[in-house]
Amino acid sequence: MGGVKRIAILGSTGSIGRQTLDVIRALPDSLEVVALTGNKNHELLQRQLREFQPKMFCSSVKPAVSYGSEFLSMEEIASHHGVDFVIVATAGKAGLSPTLAALRAGKAVALASKEVLVMAGELILREASSHQAQILPIDSEHSAIWQCLRGEENEPRRLFLTASGGPFYHYSQSQLTQVTPEQALQHPVWKMGRKVTIDSATLMNKGLEVIEAHWLFSFPFDSIEILIHPQSIVHSMVEFRDGSLKAQLSWPDMRLPIQYALSYPQRWPNSKLPRLDWAKIKSLNFEAVDYDRFPCLKLAVGAGESGGTYPAVLCASDEVAVELFLSHRIGFGDIARIVGETLEQHQNISQPSLEDILAADDWAREYATLLSPGYSSEPER
Amino acid sequence: MGGVKRIAILGSTGSIGRQTLDVIRALPDSLEVVALTGNKNHELLQRQLREFQPKMFCSSVKPAVSYGSEFLSMEEIASHHGVDFVIVATAGKAGLSPTLAALRAGKAVALASKEVLVMAGELILREASSHQAQILPIDSEHSAIWQCLRGEENEPRRLFLTASGGPFYHYSQSQLTQVTPEQALQHPVWKMGRKVTIDSATLMNKGLEVIEAHWLFSFPFDSIEILIHPQSIVHSMVEFRDGSLKAQLSWPDMRLPIQYALSYPQRWPNSKLPRLDWAKIKSLNFEAVDYDRFPCLKLAVGAGESGGTYPAVLCASDEVAVELFLSHRIGFGDIARIVGETLEQHQNISQPSLEDILAADDWAREYATLLSPGYSSEPER
Repeated sequence: MGGVKRIAILGSTGSIGRQTLDVIRALPDSLEVVALTGNKNHELLQRQLREFQPKMFCSSVKPAVSYGSEFLSMEEIASHHGVDFVIVATAGKAGLSPTLAALRAGKAVALASKEVLVMAGELILREASSHQAQILPIDSEHSAIWQCLRGEENEPRRLFLTASGGPFYHYSQSQLTQVTPEQALQHPVWKMGRKVTIDSATLMNKGLEVIEAHWLFSFPFDSIEILIHPQSIVHSMVEFRDGSLKAQLSWPDMRLPIQYALSYPQRWPNSKLPRLDWAKIKSLNFEAVDYDRFPCLKLAVGAGESGGTYPAVLCASDEVAVELFLSHRIGFGDIARIVGETLEQHQNISQPSLEDILAADDWAREYATLLSPGYSSEPER
Repeated sequence: MGGVKRIAILGSTGSIGRQTLDVIRALPDSLEVVALTGNKNHELLQRQLREFQPKMFCSSVKPAVSYGSEFLSMEEIASHHGVDFVIVATAGKAGLSPTLAALRAGKAVALASKEVLVMAGELILREASSHQAQILPIDSEHSAIWQCLRGEENEPRRLFLTASGGPFYHYSQSQLTQVTPEQALQHPVWKMGRKVTIDSATLMNKGLEVIEAHWLFSFPFDSIEILIHPQSIVHSMVEFRDGSLKAQLSWPDMRLPIQYALSYPQRWPNSKLPRLDWAKIKSLNFEAVDYDRFPCLKLAVGAGESGGTYPAVLCASDEVAVELFLSHRIGFGDIARIVGETLEQHQNISQPSLEDILAADDWAREYATLLSPGYSSEPER
């Protein structure tokens, strides 16, 4: 196994960051935390620094006490010689620049942040390849596909991304317009951050995953299909060219794909991880996704297919729209409207640089905000 | 891919043999039939000889016309220098001696005949290992496990063999005693030979597969579980030590596992093989198996765990009992009674030679016949 892996967790105070620390707690002989970074949750980051005493950390403000840990930027941490493995679990575009820094330093990078590949897939893949750096998925769906492709020599024929469908999958178009933030935050299966939970209810999340799958597995969009699977036991499937499919199954628990990325190519026993109990499952259901009632999904796949800076605009306008929805300033159906109108007005740049991507992001945030019904150019008090 | 594979099919007139020829018909650039063997279906074997014009053949009687094909014994064919790949799809113990011959000649052997590994697993594995000959599974369940294990570096934790449950899975104990051969021959999913269809209704078949899985994957009996899965879409599953499971799925069509064994490590496109259509599936159901209503299953697993010549006695007494049932001389429930009583009276020999195994088979056939209610020592007229 080659000794202890030295791990940097970017975004250690978020949901994936905390679960990564859970995995590391259970496997102290194989994994060591050497860097933690947080954003606004200073109190939790302080507790994590005290517990893990990493060599380095980063935070939005420099704290008074840091338990001997050195304050560095996320880019410095991601490319540091004392780091073997970088987990990018930051929110939004924050992971973009540190991911590029890690790849240029040849680190293995496990991506939990969807935005990194969605906004800058082409750029990220190019840097990974020219520095022979490995990109590993942490999303349960992409981890499932990666596990199913293991050891296979031929290109698969189709990928099936499964989707729980979120809390409103069987709502009618008119019911969907009445959905409140409080309802949308109750996800039936996964406990996640607020932004991801809303994206899961609009199926934007699944659209972002289609774009990620396209980049991670160099797979054409028209061979990536979505299956609604409410139990979230089958995390995704691969169809091979002889007609055989492989599926990966487990209880919905993000610690498993996190650990798989950390242990790969090994699998490590971990008594803290849940075991599937077939007596409790009985039935696994599947149905084709309805693109019409979930326009965010169609917008996302379309932006992915168009490429260039469109996916960055998709992410940025969605972030603005979800924030407006969570603060009760727009309705559930307005999320897709704002994202759609922003995409429509965007002037695409193909093969964009990081600067192009960040500029598109800035533009989209501004434009999407203008589309909010209560918008006024004066700052809120 | 290294040129055309030269295939010998032992048992080409049976269900698996015919489906193997179907696969070869679709892939003439990769596969060549060099030998065919049949038993009593002379007419079909003649047609196959005419169509494929193999170099060698074997049959229970030497026919008048053989289209230039040389008549050899099954052992001669299996070990012939002109053969790369031997498919053993014979009925009962007939495949035992040719399989040993093929392995001793270092051939790759794909096993569709359950009896070979069940009766002589230890011996077969020893010969394969000392001649570096490969054994490949063709049963859909074992092919599924083999596909799921592909590329994995660590021992799995559990194997889940799925079982359709056969036509009577939800019958009560008393309903089961009323089952007729005509009912038992109507399998809900698979079209197979008569013996296998009855074994599928008693779940003896699944018990034999547990023993096969034990040998094929060097896996302990207490980590092999059976799940009733009526749709027969998930062909089996593997649980790894991190709690992740992989499953292999496809329409129930034996041509897929046959082709997989032939194409491995490649997968070949074949437009004749069916593709899963999720719009037609909707739901996959699973439940734990009930050992109490299906005593043949318990007998089989017990014989496997005891080892030695017990599994040979299991196969032989079951073959006799199924024949008695099919000819209306015993009831459905008597199959388990006859097999159980024969096993009980058997004097086990551990680490048996081929001769020991064949002697146990002879003894068991005689003893099981004695247990038939209408038995008389005089021959039937």
